Amino acid sequence: MNPAPTPTPSSEDPTGFADLRPSIESALASACQFNEGCPSRLGDAMRYAVLAPGKRLRPALVLMAAEACGGEMDSAMPGAVAVEMIHAYSLIHDDLPAMDDDDLRRGRPTCHIEFDEPTAILAGDALIAEAFSHLANQIEDPNRIVEAVRTLSKAAGAAHLVGGQADDLAAERDGKDEINQDVKLASKAFTSDSIAADLAFLESIHHRKTGALIAASLDLGAILGGGTNDQRDALAQYASLVGLAFQVVDDLLDFTSDAESMGKRTGKDAERGKLTYPGLLGIEGAQQRADQLIIEAKRQISVFENRQRRLSCLATYVLERSH
Amino acid sequence: MNPAPTPTPSSEDPTGFADLRPSIESALASACQFNEGCPSRLGDAMRYAVLAPGKRLRPALVLMAAEACGGEMDSAMPGAVAVEMIHAYSLIHDDLPAMDDDDLRRGRPTCHIEFDEPTAILAGDALIAEAFSHLANQIEDPNRIVEAVRTLSKAAGAAHLVGGQADDLAAERDGKDEINQDVKLASKAFTSDSIAADLAFLESIHHRKTGALIAASLDLGAILGGGTNDQRDALAQYASLVGLAFQVVDDLLDFTSDAESMGKRTGKDAERGKLTYPGLLGIEGAQQRADQLIIEAKRQISVFENRQRRLSCLATYVLERSH
Repeated sequence: MNPAPTPTPSSEDPTGFADLRPSIESALASACQFNEGCPSRLGDAMRYAVLAPGKRLRPALVLMAAEACGGEMDSAMPGAVAVEMIHAYSLIHDDLPAMDDDDLRRGRPTCHIEFDEPTAILAGDALIAEAFSHLANQIEDPNRIVEAVRTLSKAAGAAHLVGGQADDLAAERDGKDEINQDVKLASKAFTSDSIAADLAFLESIHHRKTGALIAASLDLGAILGGGTNDQRDALAQYASLVGLAFQVVDDLLDFTSDAESMGKRTGKDAERGKLTYPGLLGIEGAQQRADQLIIEAKRQISVFENRQRRLSCLATYVLERSH
Repeated sequence: MNPAPTPTPSSEDPTGFADLRPSIESALASACQFNEGCPSRLGDAMRYAVLAPGKRLRPALVLMAAEACGGEMDSAMPGAVAVEMIHAYSLIHDDLPAMDDDDLRRGRPTCHIEFDEPTAILAGDALIAEAFSHLANQIEDPNRIVEAVRTLSKAAGAAHLVGGQADDLAAERDGKDEINQDVKLASKAFTSDSIAADLAFLESIHHRKTGALIAASLDLGAILGGGTNDQRDALAQYASLVGLAFQVVDDLLDFTSDAESMGKRTGKDAERGKLTYPGLLGIEGAQQRADQLIIEAKRQISVFENRQRRLSCLATYVLERSH
């Protein structure tokens, strides 16, 4: 599972982590058995969400960060599984009728369409608990369990993953009247330009909603790979920059792709008046923003020297999705 | 906070733990500040749910179990807070329109009525993560953190709290067609009598839905109070018996109380054709069942000798609610 040499990006594997995916899929399937006492329909819904086809970006980040810190990727797998469970829960709940009300995700019916709404709510709830259970039961060193639970619970909590979604919904529905006042005030302190203030607010949402879990993935990898504090800090910076770039590119793709190639309804964000980067900066401005973020992300991980190739490759990939 | 002598039940304090409530309320309020980065409306909804008026049964059980095992109640407070957060989340989500669709709980509007449905979903989600964060950040000993996270995540997961709610909804809506097949088969293996089979199924739901969190409360107290494995086992037996008795009595009260004294719509379970103990056993049969459960619960905790008075007092109280 630790192949040498580290692969370079290619047309067959633009992400540079395709070789990690079979072991990730296998670990996810094994973790999602939920045998004893789990109602079968609930377990089916949880598996439907976690084992849905996907790139496994977050689990791969856990493994790549562990590798960058000089650790074994196998020992980081419990973190990879737990973060994918949290990601899956957040997608289930974000898609609910009371939230983003989406019927399709990557071309498949969303969980509440395939099953039903109460089952989808409960499957999401159970996945949060199962993620922490997995960390506490599958990692050997108690100190690493404690650090891993701290990192994942913070990222999944009120100030980050959930708080970002709450602000995102508030911004969309209430014309930003009910958004986090602190964020609005902070934005206004830096600039009187309303585009810049909206951009700062948009980035604060994405730093939390998308970025928090990306950052937690890298930090889990660092914890489970035995990283130093300096290494954890460098990965946190990289995470923040790549996470934002990922969102900028997602917004760009929403503007430029058609429904067939994305497998979900596109242009929907714009219809609903949701804040997006191309909406604020134009397509060219958003592209430049993504470019800058990735240059800086690569600078941050130069400290890992020859062990940063996968992370560098991934940063390139995030950018190239938009070209 | 560790008064001597341990109080005995009285007409002013039938639960025998009224003296513990001020320190529990104070710990909950302190834990629910959610200052940095939490959107204010989300934080308000979380506080609305956690700080709602209540008896604080689960937190008190954590403290009482720690005391029974010879530990300090103060050192068990992080477990008390975490379990109340999980309890609060489960009430928020159970009340949602897609679930039990309740507007009132203890005479107050439910979270999605007082705020809105997406805020209620997100407040519940965030409380799960905050509960684990609280354990990982407020307990000193890493080994106790690990045990506490294992216990709480298991109780809150797919096989217990969430699985019980899933089966409860399935039993109510689908005439038990889609309930956990294992439970149905297990029930049928013991008896061909359909009342007994329904009773076994009802008890399996309550063992998980109500009982799992009661059991986790006592186990958290034992872990944080330095209990032995034998002590943890005795508390698990007590939990199972008192948890079931609590549910039997709740069902009895639903049959016999009026809306004003309970602060919620009563008889609603019966209207909806939900399985209940008086429905299966009659009022007298259900009362006898509760009596038997409590006698056995008290026998289990006799191993704690003079440190079991609060737990014994509580068992009496659970029963006397119905008389």
